[in-house]
Amino acid sequence: MIAAPTFADVQSAASRLRGHAHRTPVLRSATADARLGAQLFFKCENFQRMGAFKFRGAFNALSQFTPQQKQAGVVTFSSGNHAQAIALSARILGIAAAILMPQDAPQAKIDATRGYLGSGGEIILYDRYTQDREVLVADLAARRGMTLIPPYDHPHVIAGQGTAALELFEECGALDALFVCLGGGGLLSGSALAARAMVPSCKVIGVEPEAGNDGQQAFRTGAIVHIPVPRTIADGAQTQHLGQYTFEVIRRDVDDIVTVTDGQLVDAMRFYAQRMKLVVEPTGCLSLAAALQAGDALKGQRVGILVSGGNVDLARYAQLLTG
Amino acid sequence: MIAAPTFADVQSAASRLRGHAHRTPVLRSATADARLGAQLFFKCENFQRMGAFKFRGAFNALSQFTPQQKQAGVVTFSSGNHAQAIALSARILGIAAAILMPQDAPQAKIDATRGYLGSGGEIILYDRYTQDREVLVADLAARRGMTLIPPYDHPHVIAGQGTAALELFEECGALDALFVCLGGGGLLSGSALAARAMVPSCKVIGVEPEAGNDGQQAFRTGAIVHIPVPRTIADGAQTQHLGQYTFEVIRRDVDDIVTVTDGQLVDAMRFYAQRMKLVVEPTGCLSLAAALQAGDALKGQRVGILVSGGNVDLARYAQLLTG
Repeated sequence: MIAAPTFADVQSAASRLRGHAHRTPVLRSATADARLGAQLFFKCENFQRMGAFKFRGAFNALSQFTPQQKQAGVVTFSSGNHAQAIALSARILGIAAAILMPQDAPQAKIDATRGYLGSGGEIILYDRYTQDREVLVADLAARRGMTLIPPYDHPHVIAGQGTAALELFEECGALDALFVCLGGGGLLSGSALAARAMVPSCKVIGVEPEAGNDGQQAFRTGAIVHIPVPRTIADGAQTQHLGQYTFEVIRRDVDDIVTVTDGQLVDAMRFYAQRMKLVVEPTGCLSLAAALQAGDALKGQRVGILVSGGNVDLARYAQLLTG
Repeated sequence: MIAAPTFADVQSAASRLRGHAHRTPVLRSATADARLGAQLFFKCENFQRMGAFKFRGAFNALSQFTPQQKQAGVVTFSSGNHAQAIALSARILGIAAAILMPQDAPQAKIDATRGYLGSGGEIILYDRYTQDREVLVADLAARRGMTLIPPYDHPHVIAGQGTAALELFEECGALDALFVCLGGGGLLSGSALAARAMVPSCKVIGVEPEAGNDGQQAFRTGAIVHIPVPRTIADGAQTQHLGQYTFEVIRRDVDDIVTVTDGQLVDAMRFYAQRMKLVVEPTGCLSLAAALQAGDALKGQRVGILVSGGNVDLARYAQLLTG
């Protein structure tokens, strides 16, 4: 068992990522500011390599492989963005990769993953409503000697994801609150590590889709809660439970977990397109959707909004924009 | 008649705009680079205030008003973005504004203009296929003593628009080529002034919709050419002729004018959404569309792409994305 991640690990990850990950821009919106009477700072990980923050965690994990691990390769499972992140990182680092993807993942994500994989990679599709991906992938790892890098419950992944919030605090200084989407908890726990060390007073708020609030339940009851695969447009947050590592950090360092509806996600998505000229995927809309629900609670505050990614099928995106 | 604009005017405009206009980010795209074998630098004026570069020219012009001019107010005509730019600049500077807009302008632009106008502003709609906007607006200017700030053919407007390219050269240094959309020529002539002074060897290329190539015809024949209102999705480039000021700069300082089809604009729009997570309006897609047609001609070069704006009705945008 690898030691639980710390802020020092986030700092090391930032060094490893330098020159490999984009330092994504922080954008502002006068319209959003006026609507909430607050100052909002949007950390745009939709501009990250492969279109989402996931590159940070994947690259940080793979760049710590031993020569033997590199030779045997990496295996993982993912509903999309982590798959692309592992594919791209593995190709950059010259590591073979086997990636298990649900067969109903957005076609754009399956295609993009194939595009990022080098000649030493393969994609294996499975049915996420009838098969247990963790069993499938453990079997693959055992048979081929590959190292499993899961989408979120790994200290190196968590530390890598934390570098987005680290950059946001470096650039914007003290924030009163930070909204972060919550699926398995990699981005939220990494962000919380950065916040506690850099701006201890900053409230860190995780945001889940209403249909899949396992994280909120876990946070309130003090134990990991397992739920059926939730039906929500936020495909990156269709996780069934938090991880051991992510839950420990979240219950210690996160201030609250709130939920939003799919309708609120669509409103946020339209706001991004119309007012900020940004394409943001449904999961990436969780953080803003929650802030927009907060009403007067944020008045006068400096608020960070982590925009997690922008990978969405264009046909699906167009459909969501027009309803 | 005000003196023809020079690079010194662009520099003065940059000073006036400091703290008022956004210094927009320059984004990169590994996918675009790979496709052209070149290095592309995207100057993202879709992130400019009111969603387009037009704020630069409007604010630069209005901030030079005398106290008397301020009192009488500003009048203008515009198919959209210039209207919003004048509306916002006038409100910031406390100047009354009357804005003539074609009744078939995108609803999003009419609504946004109303939103930006303060209590001292009004919008007057007209039919651009049967009425001459220049006559209508001159009449308004004469009756009310207002100062006309036209969308492009004014030295202060041209100088303001040139600040986007000035920032791009400041940030990226020498470029081999710069692609700029061409409607009435404000952005193109301002960009050319910046290029000639800052990177004399940089080829400046104007890009028009194929259906409305009056600028290309003028450039080739050496005289301004007037055409019927072209039918194209690039509503910001539905101009009927270049201006006196813009044409003089363009014929002296621009290297070539090329055209693209509406289909090529849609391809570029999809590329921006899918690969760069950017919402770009049809006119804003002209520059990239032309670069994508250039094929091997740009191999190994450093190429600037001016992304002019992102103001597009969401319903219309969704329709274009899915075709």
